[in-house]
Amino acid sequence: MTMSERPSPPKGGFSARRLISIDDLTDSDIRYILNLAEHYAGYLRRAAPAPRRLAGKTQINLFFEDSTRTNLSFDLAGKKLGADVINVPVSASSVHKGETLVDTAQTLAAMGAHIMIVRAKEEGLHKTLDELLPCPVVNGGAGKLEHPTQGLLDAAAIRSEFGELDGLVIAICGDIKHSRVAGSDARLFRRLGADVRFVGPAHLMPPDDQFTDIPRIGSLREGLDGADIAMGLRMQFERMEGPDQRSGKALAQGFYEEFGLTHETLKLAKPGARVMHPGPMNRGVEICGTLADDPDSSLILRQVFYGVATRMACLDALLTKGE
Amino acid sequence: MTMSERPSPPKGGFSARRLISIDDLTDSDIRYILNLAEHYAGYLRRAAPAPRRLAGKTQINLFFEDSTRTNLSFDLAGKKLGADVINVPVSASSVHKGETLVDTAQTLAAMGAHIMIVRAKEEGLHKTLDELLPCPVVNGGAGKLEHPTQGLLDAAAIRSEFGELDGLVIAICGDIKHSRVAGSDARLFRRLGADVRFVGPAHLMPPDDQFTDIPRIGSLREGLDGADIAMGLRMQFERMEGPDQRSGKALAQGFYEEFGLTHETLKLAKPGARVMHPGPMNRGVEICGTLADDPDSSLILRQVFYGVATRMACLDALLTKGE
Amino acid sequence: MTMSERPSPPKGGFSARRLISIDDLTDSDIRYILNLAEHYAGYLRRAAPAPRRLAGKTQINLFFEDSTRTNLSFDLAGKKLGADVINVPVSASSVHKGETLVDTAQTLAAMGAHIMIVRAKEEGLHKTLDELLPCPVVNGGAGKLEHPTQGLLDAAAIRSEFGELDGLVIAICGDIKHSRVAGSDARLFRRLGADVRFVGPAHLMPPDDQFTDIPRIGSLREGLDGADIAMGLRMQFERMEGPDQRSGKALAQGFYEEFGLTHETLKLAKPGARVMHPGPMNRGVEICGTLADDPDSSLILRQVFYGVATRMACLDALLTKGE
Repeated sequence: MTMSERPSPPKGGFSARRLISIDDLTDSDIRYILNLAEHYAGYLRRAAPAPRRLAGKTQINLFFEDSTRTNLSFDLAGKKLGADVINVPVSASSVHKGETLVDTAQTLAAMGAHIMIVRAKEEGLHKTLDELLPCPVVNGGAGKLEHPTQGLLDAAAIRSEFGELDGLVIAICGDIKHSRVAGSDARLFRRLGADVRFVGPAHLMPPDDQFTDIPRIGSLREGLDGADIAMGLRMQFERMEGPDQRSGKALAQGFYEEFGLTHETLKLAKPGARVMHPGPMNRGVEICGTLADDPDSSLILRQVFYGVATRMACLDALLTKGE
Repeated sequence: MTMSERPSPPKGGFSARRLISIDDLTDSDIRYILNLAEHYAGYLRRAAPAPRRLAGKTQINLFFEDSTRTNLSFDLAGKKLGADVINVPVSASSVHKGETLVDTAQTLAAMGAHIMIVRAKEEGLHKTLDELLPCPVVNGGAGKLEHPTQGLLDAAAIRSEFGELDGLVIAICGDIKHSRVAGSDARLFRRLGADVRFVGPAHLMPPDDQFTDIPRIGSLREGLDGADIAMGLRMQFERMEGPDQRSGKALAQGFYEEFGLTHETLKLAKPGARVMHPGPMNRGVEICGTLADDPDSSLILRQVFYGVATRMACLDALLTKGE
Repeated sequence: MTMSERPSPPKGGFSARRLISIDDLTDSDIRYILNLAEHYAGYLRRAAPAPRRLAGKTQINLFFEDSTRTNLSFDLAGKKLGADVINVPVSASSVHKGETLVDTAQTLAAMGAHIMIVRAKEEGLHKTLDELLPCPVVNGGAGKLEHPTQGLLDAAAIRSEFGELDGLVIAICGDIKHSRVAGSDARLFRRLGADVRFVGPAHLMPPDDQFTDIPRIGSLREGLDGADIAMGLRMQFERMEGPDQRSGKALAQGFYEEFGLTHETLKLAKPGARVMHPGPMNRGVEICGTLADDPDSSLILRQVFYGVATRMACLDALLTKGE
């Protein structure tokens, strides 16, 4: 694909009408978004104005949970395409105590939203809103379950380095149990043909009845063997269960020694393997700062860059249906 | 009026130079704003980019009082017309303790504001600013007295449903005493030819020397008789006077049973009557949630939609003088 | 220079690649920025849309320290030129406790920032970021040392009144010791040929080994003698050292009587002298409110106005290299 051409829309158009889960997308939808993300990455690299394909459209970012980087990334993505973007901050969004989350979202949608990005702790909220609101709902992060645009941007970043995901071995490492990223990544990477593994201690693995078809490996030596990519995850101390705050830290104790990603442990993977992390990182807990900052081994800042391009692609696809 | 044509400017142009009170507008000004609001509503409905008539203009939203929905509505209205919009949040606007509200407003105006939207508790602030600042001042809500753009958007929403206000019977119900909306609505609706009534318990009525020409009715049965519209108002517990916080709740006790708007009580009004509410609602206090959400009876979300279109019209009219 | 023409770029282009200190600019760079600031001031005065020379560019305002007016001024400057501006508020920017300031800045830069405005207490942060980030860094205020865009906007405001700075006598008065403005102003004004003096009590003067070539004068009578401009400074109580909070106030006691700028004391300066202040003012501490508000004597609001125009010039120059 040349930079100046638009990727061909998939046959039959882009079919998804919401993006709450990776499962809302057909294979053809996924491929279309990834191609479009690469297309927009070209504009960003050249600091060239992207076509204002969303001029006149209203995008509302409704973040009931604080998340600076995801919020800014969606904000920038919409602005790059000429949308009128409204950010509703956490504190404001909960300001009227009489109102429910659904009331707030409905009122905002009534201002003429053409697309609404919602981040919330409540795991069922997105589906409720999808039924009630006249506009597409995009999941900007929900509970422990899904973070679909993070999955898509991770795939876009991997493609930019490896060409395709098909045949790659990807080790998702660490606190899989509490990570909304791990689930979206795992589902998407497998659909794109990658060989996915979960690597970490047993108490950070998801419940036994989830992700039954993904191998779980309890040591980094075995887990990274043959891997093209080691994906670290933020240790979610605040979502860990336990009688007191210390329990999270206690669970993490010894983690870095056994599972920390470093230049040394990355040698257990394939030659030329890359490290990734959705951020924000706990340096010295999941990953060594020196490795994270090494542009020869780390794709971490490239993930951030593809965050904007991929969200541009998602907004464009959902609002224009690939036309 | 077709959507693609611009409403004719009133003869002699649009004359108002500020919008602090409904009384700042001539009858011709009011009609011009309502027509222009309907014009812009057409763009919003079609998700079509409105003409960037305010390109190069700077709009500053200075909200000394928190109000998510009004702030977002003005923000979006300005952006839709291509203005450069700056939002000054509550906390930031009070950050330098040495500065007075007037200092802050003057400094912001000196950045090159072409229009300033101000929301504040202080009832005299808007007139002081109007004398000092070189740009038009718009009242985004002040004390208990006025909220003129809410009045205009309510009139625009009513017109979209009933054609004209002339001859309609409109019952404004509930906590009239503490509502800045009630006053602006009542004044405007009467000027547009509607028959307005206040309906509620005596202790929630305004002082005897205010609104002397508007009938006050102490029962919902009598108050809704013959009404085309029942306008609920938010019960302003936080503005109620009393020795302790409980007193507000105590005053409200029994209100829903006697004055609550429901499918049942709406039958006391004319067949086909509609319910309205400026929001945010206390469901189960002023209004039943089921009625509020019923698109056949409720204009509440339409009020929100016309909020953006009406504010576009106000900004355009004040900044371009109808040229 | 006519308003409609663009000032000629300096021979050899605009050379600076960052704006952390006034010392980053050559004399030719300074002159180019001041001419361009005057050029953009013309657009602002006419409320005319400026050319969207920064369309497609991403500007990130990263304010680790709260500063409403500087932040809004940069925000507006970028928007006026068509940049996509992202504001990262104080609270959000410190939200992930595991992250360092440098981590946060690098992540934001990776979203595709083409220029980053940073305000921080840490005095070495800007140079660290300049080495790490791929985009130009602009100092939006740092520690006690520098605030270069304030120096430039002050110079632009002075030029708009006096034509040139060459040969003017400028008295910088008051709390020089704790002011980041005083240093940037003094360095810049001297490079532009002005005769600069520090006027104030000994305990508010900078350390003896700094600014050794600028005369220090301990009385207002002598200090304002022959001055064209008296520049007041905010008394930085919060940066004053001492065993308790009262000490700052105690140090300031008697200051107004001895050094306060008033219509009366301004008569000590040249006829037609003007008063300036970077704001926010402590009325009745450094300056009399009546003098500050007198348009015949005060350039204070004009400084705010030139803030936007000068920052437009800085952004344009750094991002387009005067092409």
